[in-house]
Amino acid sequence: MPGAAFQLTERDLEDFATGAWILGTGGGGDPYFSLLEAKQHLAAGRTVTVVDPLSLPDDALVACVGQMGAPLAKQEKLCDGDVIASTIPMMEKHLGRKFDAVMLWEVGGNNGFQAILSGLILGLPVVDCDAMGRAFPQADMTTFAICDLPAYPWTMVDIRRNSLIFTEAENWTWMEKMTRRVCTVFGASAATCKAPRTGEEVKRGSCLHTLSWALSIGRTVRAARAAHADPIAAVVAAEGGLVLFRGKVTDVMRRATDGWLRGRVTIEGLDGDQGESMAIDFQNEFSVAWRGDKPAATVPDLICLLDSASGEAIGTETVRYGQRVTVIALPAPAILTTPKGLQHVGPRAFGFDLDFHSVFPARSA
Amino acid sequence: MPGAAFQLTERDLEDFATGAWILGTGGGGDPYFSLLEAKQHLAAGRTVTVVDPLSLPDDALVACVGQMGAPLAKQEKLCDGDVIASTIPMMEKHLGRKFDAVMLWEVGGNNGFQAILSGLILGLPVVDCDAMGRAFPQADMTTFAICDLPAYPWTMVDIRRNSLIFTEAENWTWMEKMTRRVCTVFGASAATCKAPRTGEEVKRGSCLHTLSWALSIGRTVRAARAAHADPIAAVVAAEGGLVLFRGKVTDVMRRATDGWLRGRVTIEGLDGDQGESMAIDFQNEFSVAWRGDKPAATVPDLICLLDSASGEAIGTETVRYGQRVTVIALPAPAILTTPKGLQHVGPRAFGFDLDFHSVFPARSA
Repeated sequence: MPGAAFQLTERDLEDFATGAWILGTGGGGDPYFSLLEAKQHLAAGRTVTVVDPLSLPDDALVACVGQMGAPLAKQEKLCDGDVIASTIPMMEKHLGRKFDAVMLWEVGGNNGFQAILSGLILGLPVVDCDAMGRAFPQADMTTFAICDLPAYPWTMVDIRRNSLIFTEAENWTWMEKMTRRVCTVFGASAATCKAPRTGEEVKRGSCLHTLSWALSIGRTVRAARAAHADPIAAVVAAEGGLVLFRGKVTDVMRRATDGWLRGRVTIEGLDGDQGESMAIDFQNEFSVAWRGDKPAATVPDLICLLDSASGEAIGTETVRYGQRVTVIALPAPAILTTPKGLQHVGPRAFGFDLDFHSVFPARSA
Repeated sequence: MPGAAFQLTERDLEDFATGAWILGTGGGGDPYFSLLEAKQHLAAGRTVTVVDPLSLPDDALVACVGQMGAPLAKQEKLCDGDVIASTIPMMEKHLGRKFDAVMLWEVGGNNGFQAILSGLILGLPVVDCDAMGRAFPQADMTTFAICDLPAYPWTMVDIRRNSLIFTEAENWTWMEKMTRRVCTVFGASAATCKAPRTGEEVKRGSCLHTLSWALSIGRTVRAARAAHADPIAAVVAAEGGLVLFRGKVTDVMRRATDGWLRGRVTIEGLDGDQGESMAIDFQNEFSVAWRGDKPAATVPDLICLLDSASGEAIGTETVRYGQRVTVIALPAPAILTTPKGLQHVGPRAFGFDLDFHSVFPARSA
């Protein structure tokens, strides 16, 4: 039976921000500014209702919104809710039909907030699901791509008066290529409404209940902090995760290129990992963690870099020398680790000649 | 009084190809394959009518079609009439209104044929005008940009199933930037229907009667060849042009970059120019001709490279070592040499820190 609809409170928004930032695996962008904006909307009397995807009629029409670009660029060009919300009526005009609800494109980081802001501004319910179950850098790394659902149309706007509609794409790879180029000319930052989905497609092709998942992780962190307990240990216990490494950041290589933020973080071990080192490669999100020259964890397992004391997530755009960090892994939604899923989001999709070996062997397919 | 409408004959198509290729100033692409396709349409019983822009009602709706990209890429990816024609119904669907006619975006080279092919395929009349009066490499180098007419919407398709609509652009520069990036990801070749124009805008903002101009230049070449006379001398005399240089191509630097073909041709003098040399820079089209280290001619004056024997134009994608060539200048349409025009198409718009001094001082503003 579908869960009951509920309204997000200010405290929910805070917990969602904490959880979504952890699920961002370094990417999706820092949710801080969007959290502030969402709180302002609540203070102004606006509300947003979260609905269970399982309650959607098959013929419901659902908008999928998300920011694209390099998180580093978003540090300077803040994501304004009005901009992301404007992609939705633009799509409605193109389709000649109104949306019934809006869903998250990726739950991770600031992108998790884009559907919430759109819901607050446009008065649309937000569906408790997303198309990644974490954050990923490319449009062809979604459950909708894995399920071979249509990649088009997309609407896209920037912070100026530039807007466009990608009316048709040969496949998800072409949609990713086209949109990435325009995103790059916009300064590695663009707001998009992706291919509309029916209720049936959402139920079949998305990661269900991931908004609630982020909320629940945030609540775990809050409760641990209130009890003066270790929030990281609490999250790992609650989510069936694994601590991979503890240490101090000693080097960060980072460059904004081709519309992404790419680079590598190096961490020298502390505590039980003294004398060892871990390097983590990233393309917006953390993709492969190396202990010495051996892969210790790879996509699609979630590789999360957390502040060792506060349990707060650290993004690839803000990680810096000297931070005391703990690297944890969380299990990925099951669809991502299927053979078809791994074609889209396995290590090879990120350019690494590696097979996927989950750090959660019991949970792998 | 507007001129009478007329149907293009097979001979007209050939003469138009010759004339348009000269007006292409090295760019716009070789019209050879489009000429063959247009002849096939005529042979299949299709017709195309050319109408005088001055005969258009103010509220007529006119489509502007053109290929964009690097001419070198078009040598491998031929421009198919069905592809360019498909951009027009796509725009009609977006606007919710049918077009009354189609006009040339740029008369020069193969691009001059795109409106003719569209007219043949869709049964639309072709308006005897264009937005450049020659060929230029960028969308912001048009009379419509000079006249500050709206830059959007555009439809764009490639040879796959990729298509998009640029629904709004901050200005012509942004439209150029956005479309160029997508064109580049398409392999430096894309078919576009540019911002629709009303009859009033066409009459006020385009270069009038340029299809006829190309036709007339082609007829001059044909007549001179038939009379065993010098076709270049005939064109120069008929059009009030100027011979700038005669020689042999000794070097070509050429690279496809950022969606354009850029480079430089070097010519060693023959006949009266023995012992001298001329270099001509190009960005798709020839932009600045240098005699020694002094500019001899610059945009917007038309700098045309012709085969010294046949009078046939030579494109920047096909010019090669050893060709015997004559460089001529033809006067540009008056709007291009106005102060506002020169902001868009003068030497500085091409990155040269030079003032425009026409080789036709009497005709300059």
